[in-house]
Amino acid sequence: MNDEYYMKFALNLARSVSGQTSPNPPVGSVVVKDGEMLGFGAHVKAGEAHAEVHALNMAGDKAKSATIYVTLEPCSHHGRTPPCADLIVEKGISRAVIAVTDPNEKVAGRGIETLRAAGIEVELGVAEKEAAEINSVFFHYTNTKTPYVTMKSAVSLDGKTATVTGGSKWITGEAARLDVHHYRHKHDAILVGVETVIADNPSLTTRIPNGGKNPIRVILDTSLRTPLDAAILNDQQADTWLFTGKDVTEQDMAPFKEKSGIDVIKMERLTIEDVLLDLGSKGIMSLFVEGGATVNSSFLEERRINQLITYMAPKLIGGKTAPTFIEGNGFQSMADTLSLEIKHVEMIDKDIKIIAEPRKEEADVYRNN
Amino acid sequence: MNDEYYMKFALNLARSVSGQTSPNPPVGSVVVKDGEMLGFGAHVKAGEAHAEVHALNMAGDKAKSATIYVTLEPCSHHGRTPPCADLIVEKGISRAVIAVTDPNEKVAGRGIETLRAAGIEVELGVAEKEAAEINSVFFHYTNTKTPYVTMKSAVSLDGKTATVTGGSKWITGEAARLDVHHYRHKHDAILVGVETVIADNPSLTTRIPNGGKNPIRVILDTSLRTPLDAAILNDQQADTWLFTGKDVTEQDMAPFKEKSGIDVIKMERLTIEDVLLDLGSKGIMSLFVEGGATVNSSFLEERRINQLITYMAPKLIGGKTAPTFIEGNGFQSMADTLSLEIKHVEMIDKDIKIIAEPRKEEADVYRNN
Repeated sequence: MNDEYYMKFALNLARSVSGQTSPNPPVGSVVVKDGEMLGFGAHVKAGEAHAEVHALNMAGDKAKSATIYVTLEPCSHHGRTPPCADLIVEKGISRAVIAVTDPNEKVAGRGIETLRAAGIEVELGVAEKEAAEINSVFFHYTNTKTPYVTMKSAVSLDGKTATVTGGSKWITGEAARLDVHHYRHKHDAILVGVETVIADNPSLTTRIPNGGKNPIRVILDTSLRTPLDAAILNDQQADTWLFTGKDVTEQDMAPFKEKSGIDVIKMERLTIEDVLLDLGSKGIMSLFVEGGATVNSSFLEERRINQLITYMAPKLIGGKTAPTFIEGNGFQSMADTLSLEIKHVEMIDKDIKIIAEPRKEEADVYRNN
Repeated sequence: MNDEYYMKFALNLARSVSGQTSPNPPVGSVVVKDGEMLGFGAHVKAGEAHAEVHALNMAGDKAKSATIYVTLEPCSHHGRTPPCADLIVEKGISRAVIAVTDPNEKVAGRGIETLRAAGIEVELGVAEKEAAEINSVFFHYTNTKTPYVTMKSAVSLDGKTATVTGGSKWITGEAARLDVHHYRHKHDAILVGVETVIADNPSLTTRIPNGGKNPIRVILDTSLRTPLDAAILNDQQADTWLFTGKDVTEQDMAPFKEKSGIDVIKMERLTIEDVLLDLGSKGIMSLFVEGGATVNSSFLEERRINQLITYMAPKLIGGKTAPTFIEGNGFQSMADTLSLEIKHVEMIDKDIKIIAEPRKEEADVYRNN
């Protein structure tokens, strides 16, 4: 077995905790000596032990002169837990294989420096691309201070989200709909427009057989039209944040604010950029956007989509006025459209699931914004 | 090697001539004895030798006591060539493995009867499903006397065929666009609506590096609005048939009819069903429908789609008024929508190609219509 093998094992451990470690990144770690797996661990929850701590604990005294694999540079600062780099040195590890450096300004290479200063051989960049993908949310948030945005849609093969009369139950099959709930579980927050709340009165909670974490519910609602009896305002399944426009008065906001777990955030400019900055400042690292078509178009036109997940059902609906998942103004010319790269295509029972991300040059635009 | 192996070899031979044998089906044949491949052939063009003839010729005297594999039941009638079943008997073949029976009323089991009557051991149904798929056009035409309809579309990931201003060059990449031309080559006819002719002035010819056969061009044009200087009326690359409505006069039709290779067909009812019956009566077995959105909706609403080929580009276009590939009235409720089955998904360079067919129960509807 080689470094790649053990790192992929560690990456799988990291994947297994993806979405439950916010605001920390998902990290996996493995301790190996003489071809024997001695310890492994992952960072399970913010405030609790880091991956390296679990892996080193499991290895115990045998960690001496062993190699440690970590999917992200070990921390070097005293946060809620002591620095992992120090622990690695203390345990007598002789070699550290690290997939990718931590861009967090509190680490940013200092973890690796600590290891090298102690005479530990450090190998950097093994399975780096895969590790960066697992950490895409964390890296994006660290670099931009705004959440990583995943837009989800469920459409027919001819691109419709409903029939001309608005019927939309159900476009995709049960397996695809369950898959969506796994994404809700993995996201800090979920966002919809007020039209969706009015039309569907959704709960926007995570419903998976073995349980799941509910995301914070974010509603874009310029004029505070969310009905006071909406499920999201009353079910207390998760906090709900209403982003409203500047013309809303204290009096308008009062009946919302007095409800438990509901907050109304009045924005000078109700742009996607400003909402994302506000969400970022509140620690929301990942945002799951479930539409509707007008909200989706705002994200598209401001080029604030980091990932697009499309479930495509093997159905033809037809109809000139049948809705699609991105409406609004749209782009005028083909040259202006948002270019994506298809990252993954798979069948989920009878539906097709497509994961796409903006191309590299588009992604750079985000960073400069 | 087993029967399955040789039949798959024969099926590959059949596939290689698919689209060039109309009105005959593509057929492949292999002659084998003692594990040695002695002869193989395919039916290359209507009016020329059948697959079995080529395979038996290649095998020569060694065909005696050999096994012949044929992807479709050998013919038993004197058509443009003598019956293959007689030839197989004459050459002393001892065993015949056949994938599927020929539904053509002139054959329909009589080829097999001839072989069995001569004491040849007949095995039927090897790789039957695959053979039926290769023969889907032929079987559909034989059963319904109407062409097998393949609808093609090229859309963005958000289901648009153009921007709100109508810009559509290009949605998909070069490789996907070339792939479309292979389908044109394989089809007897290509169909578009008059709006597409007016908007794009297309040639609808096959343009592939190693050459290709042009399909007959079929235009749905109720009021004969096709411009007299349209490319399809003047380039003489292929015949063009204009299907018009009952209100069109002889005087309206005259300037079209006097052009070489142009025919105007006046229909009492300009429905998809009647157009398909007329095309079928003229020997068109396969029809490639390239839109636009209104023509496509007629095919959908009359449930006359046998196969749907969608090229999906990794782009987001947006826009409430941006066109989709099936418009018209559409279906009112989800229960009425056309249910498909995804048969194939692949990447063509950066685009996704999806092949879908109506589900079995939908397909039965066609047969009863």
